[in-house]
Amino acid sequence: MEPPAGPFFPARHGSQRYVCYCGAEPGAAFNAYVTNASEVWSTDFNQEKLERHMAQSGISEDYSTKFREAFEHRTAALTVHNGRATLELKEDAWSLTFDLFKLPSSEARMRLQALMFGLMGCVSSLEKRLEAAEGAAAAAAAVCRSEKNQP
Amino acid sequence: MEPPAGPFFPARHGSQRYVCYCGAEPGAAFNAYVTNASEVWSTDFNQEKLERHMAQSGISEDYSTKFREAFEHRTAALTVHNGRATLELKEDAWSLTFDLFKLPSSEARMRLQALMFGLMGCVSSLEKRLEAAEGAAAAAAAVCRSEKNQP
Repeated sequence: MEPPAGPFFPARHGSQRYVCYCGAEPGAAFNAYVTNASEVWSTDFNQEKLERHMAQSGISEDYSTKFREAFEHRTAALTVHNGRATLELKEDAWSLTFDLFKLPSSEARMRLQALMFGLMGCVSSLEKRLEAAEGAAAAAAAVCRSEKNQP
Repeated sequence: MEPPAGPFFPARHGSQRYVCYCGAEPGAAFNAYVTNASEVWSTDFNQEKLERHMAQSGISEDYSTKFREAFEHRTAALTVHNGRATLELKEDAWSLTFDLFKLPSSEARMRLQALMFGLMGCVSSLEKRLEAAEGAAAAAAAVCRSEKNQP
């Protein structure tokens, strides 16, 4: 199982904290996942179920983009009731509701492992980008100084 | 349980991937943890055991610094055999060996939850630093341009 690339979004239901993310799988172009690091809920889409959901929602754009948009705009709401989780993404112009089902523990275990390494990959890639950005800022400042000092 | 602040280091033993990190606990100033996102191994130090370990190793410096140093220099080696893990940190000037013990599943579950939120916190803090660094680079370039355009 490939580690998910993120982005990973924090969410709450009551006092409980969760992580939400989505991914493309061999079986479906989009699935959403919610986890408390012990249990994992999934939309459990195959391509047929996903296309039926898209036909019903009337949204033909990539769900991953919508998912990200709603979390970035803080318009995503999560409810979790033991076996079932519901994720509602509500923007002004559109809304999407996903039912998520608790995965069996063996699959949850694999997903959590993939998630942990996905998060590690995300940290590593951000560290590299930060190093590059700090290097670029220092280099730009040095060029600026040397140009100013030229007659 | 407070989420660990990191840094988090990837490690391998054979084909298996692990994450290693350390933390200060109310019971001891240092403990090291190793996990495959399902099982968790810990040095299980209380302050007394930690001090005994430090007396034996002859290293009185903060173990967290040594831990980080060895992982950053890629001089840390991990071996895992079911119930037991061993972490060897070997620099030219010093070396440290830690025995880690598999935590009971209830504690492992809490540690994994704390780790996931620790990784999420790390991602969020890196994203903020990256945004600030990119902003600083753009601002420096703008100042440089405006100074050059002044007669």
